[in-house]
Amino acid sequence: MTDPRLDILRQALPALRVSVDPSDLEHYGRDWTRRWSPAPLAIAWPADTGEVQMLLRWAHDHVVAIVPSGGRTGLSGGAVAANGELVVSLERMNRVLGFDVVDRTLTVQPGIALQAVHEAAAAHGLQYPVDFGARGSCTIGGNIATNAGGIRVLRYGNTREWISGLKLVTGNGAVLDLNRGLVKNSSGYDLRHLAIGSEGTLGIVVEATLKLTDPPPPAQTLLLALPSFEVLMRVFAGFRARVRLQAFEFLTADGLAHVVAHGGVDPFDARHPYYVVAEFDAVDDVQQAAGLAAFEACAEAGWIVDGVIAQSQAQAQQLWRLREGITEAIARYRPYKNDIAVRMGAMPAFLAQAQALLATAYPDFEVVWFGHIGDGNLHINVLQPDGSDDDAFMRQCGHVTELLAALLAEHGGSISAEHGIGLVKKPYLGSTRSAEEIALMRGMRAVFDPAGILNPGKLFD
Amino acid sequence: MTDPRLDILRQALPALRVSVDPSDLEHYGRDWTRRWSPAPLAIAWPADTGEVQMLLRWAHDHVVAIVPSGGRTGLSGGAVAANGELVVSLERMNRVLGFDVVDRTLTVQPGIALQAVHEAAAAHGLQYPVDFGARGSCTIGGNIATNAGGIRVLRYGNTREWISGLKLVTGNGAVLDLNRGLVKNSSGYDLRHLAIGSEGTLGIVVEATLKLTDPPPPAQTLLLALPSFEVLMRVFAGFRARVRLQAFEFLTADGLAHVVAHGGVDPFDARHPYYVVAEFDAVDDVQQAAGLAAFEACAEAGWIVDGVIAQSQAQAQQLWRLREGITEAIARYRPYKNDIAVRMGAMPAFLAQAQALLATAYPDFEVVWFGHIGDGNLHINVLQPDGSDDDAFMRQCGHVTELLAALLAEHGGSISAEHGIGLVKKPYLGSTRSAEEIALMRGMRAVFDPAGILNPGKLFD
Repeated sequence: MTDPRLDILRQALPALRVSVDPSDLEHYGRDWTRRWSPAPLAIAWPADTGEVQMLLRWAHDHVVAIVPSGGRTGLSGGAVAANGELVVSLERMNRVLGFDVVDRTLTVQPGIALQAVHEAAAAHGLQYPVDFGARGSCTIGGNIATNAGGIRVLRYGNTREWISGLKLVTGNGAVLDLNRGLVKNSSGYDLRHLAIGSEGTLGIVVEATLKLTDPPPPAQTLLLALPSFEVLMRVFAGFRARVRLQAFEFLTADGLAHVVAHGGVDPFDARHPYYVVAEFDAVDDVQQAAGLAAFEACAEAGWIVDGVIAQSQAQAQQLWRLREGITEAIARYRPYKNDIAVRMGAMPAFLAQAQALLATAYPDFEVVWFGHIGDGNLHINVLQPDGSDDDAFMRQCGHVTELLAALLAEHGGSISAEHGIGLVKKPYLGSTRSAEEIALMRGMRAVFDPAGILNPGKLFD
Repeated sequence: MTDPRLDILRQALPALRVSVDPSDLEHYGRDWTRRWSPAPLAIAWPADTGEVQMLLRWAHDHVVAIVPSGGRTGLSGGAVAANGELVVSLERMNRVLGFDVVDRTLTVQPGIALQAVHEAAAAHGLQYPVDFGARGSCTIGGNIATNAGGIRVLRYGNTREWISGLKLVTGNGAVLDLNRGLVKNSSGYDLRHLAIGSEGTLGIVVEATLKLTDPPPPAQTLLLALPSFEVLMRVFAGFRARVRLQAFEFLTADGLAHVVAHGGVDPFDARHPYYVVAEFDAVDDVQQAAGLAAFEACAEAGWIVDGVIAQSQAQAQQLWRLREGITEAIARYRPYKNDIAVRMGAMPAFLAQAQALLATAYPDFEVVWFGHIGDGNLHINVLQPDGSDDDAFMRQCGHVTELLAALLAEHGGSISAEHGIGLVKKPYLGSTRSAEEIALMRGMRAVFDPAGILNPGKLFD
């Protein structure tokens, strides 16, 4: 029962690795959302740019839908293949292609894991500063497809800021070599920036040139206990005014409890309603003292009720685990995730309304939320009760997301800060982007992918 | 002899300021290139977004070509109106609309001068870090249209990095409110980044939200004298390894001589072949000493033959004038400008060939070159000899630019680093962007501007 289109593919590309093995279809057909039943046509593992190009020409000519696939750690269904698509896994294209000491750039294939990029940069005494919990599994190609953010955006910006060159194969098999590592290049539309965050709908990334920077300076890591959410922005402002923040992440008592249940260590005697993991530059005594002064000023005002300063790298990692371990600790509840953003200036007004909304809309579900407050980014995780009905749970979450989307629209926010739109947030794209914007995006997608083969059904129809 | 289309416009928008006065047509029809005879249909000065929108709807319906117009300091002819276009001057839309202390953003209208933005940021104790010589005349709208670079790119990046929100009116009069100041927003294609650098061909910028940052730290300014061009990259590497550079600009003896002839002060006793104006963070004695150590190491190696450290703000400005004063000092020769970029790593190989090319290609013309070596960006100015024939001069420069473009293509460079393509570099766009990229850009332009009214003839046909 092999598809005749696959026979043509095998004839055109006899060396291409292709599988229709059911366990491969199951494994490569889904991402971390686990809400759709995988049903791809087949999985292909191209070995190089030439094979990707040939694959896309074949897909274009035979109108085969393609799902580009990296580490499949995505949380919006962007890498799900549930409709007979060919999954193009970039797993085999996972090498470092080059390092330039003068430009301080690393050129990599798309299937390389983020952590391997970190290690390659460190081997040259430099840093690739985009970082987040999925670093061991997620790939650079996927990071680029969603313009991944993470825990260092406050200091270093999103993935977008670190891509100085991008090779992309479009929907008709053209290979674009975009920007080629240039610092300055004012020669028409920057298609590189258009491709970043396009969720595999404009082309498949086959190579990226990443900017590197100096390693992070010595830093101090703190865990702060806060009595209420209202003081959070004040604590943030108090630290930002005195130190150079590398990260400023908040979590709730519920989130902490989940991590502690999975082996995390709570350094405090009592449980507190809110926590912040903060990290700031501590190159010398002056910067150390500034951090301490920020802490004391906030404590004196009653905005911080307890705190721990990491005394070692190991303790810093323990504190970080309390924040970074949440996603893993709650994974078994297959949480429905909202990943939203507003301007920081709009945060207090938005939050007052959002908290009230969530409290009344989810009376029966546990909601674990945390986020990157310095970027205006909140993660809201609704845990699915054990034994509850999938469809009813998703309907309820969808309904609340509609209300949340309306609130976001009112406050100029975004329905997706860093996870992307994919399938999960597609119904709510209109809360963040106007009808005119979506119409323009649709027009551009048709220019890059005239046959409509690239990740169809994702982002928008 | 008023155009009937203007009568319709006047009826539709009776309050709109419009002029067909010959002196206005002459003044607003050209930019700093001064190579085309201005011949616009009329000049319009909209007062607000609504008037821009109405204007573009009218232009769309009656197929009137539009030239968006800021400070007209452009050097590529992007704001030239030589073919009966309506010039839309954003001069009257020049206000600061808001400042947000939490987000640290400034929202402005497009017609505000860069220097006024600097002053508004400084009034709030912050900095808008994009900077270059034309700061007093150029406008933010124009900066965005060309993704302007300048003298601080090494430290702060191009204009692109500092735009967190953009309001744009497209070719059919739709008003897009792009990204709205969000730090994180992964909700489809980033049309903001597409608009930045699009030279007025995708829409007219009517509002921008600019990120601000901490004021620059105390800095040390140096003028270095170099014995040859070959050592330049080594001096750069020597400083970059030891200090945090804010700027690293080079110029030649010829360039310095032109500035001195215009009142600049050469602090050295002898003339040297090459000079560098360098500026680095000097917050404390440690950083000061690191800069001195870099200087001494380079001097010991024979890469620096003389040097001056500014002892005051006034002296720093004098040193800066030697670099920044070049454009003004050579303006009377109506220089033909090449504004090219390569990766820093490609610079030595490219330069060896480029210098040989320029020496043989322009035996009769004086060539003044300078640039931002830390960004891989060189400015090559060919001075037109007094009394020479315009057309013959331009033909010769065009011929050499063709050779230079071929060399750039070989080394992966760009025909325009920061001036844009406009009319001047349009014939050479193919050296930097592939035929596939240009075809995609053409398709996208048609999506944003279906009637083809936005700056037609600029960038590409």
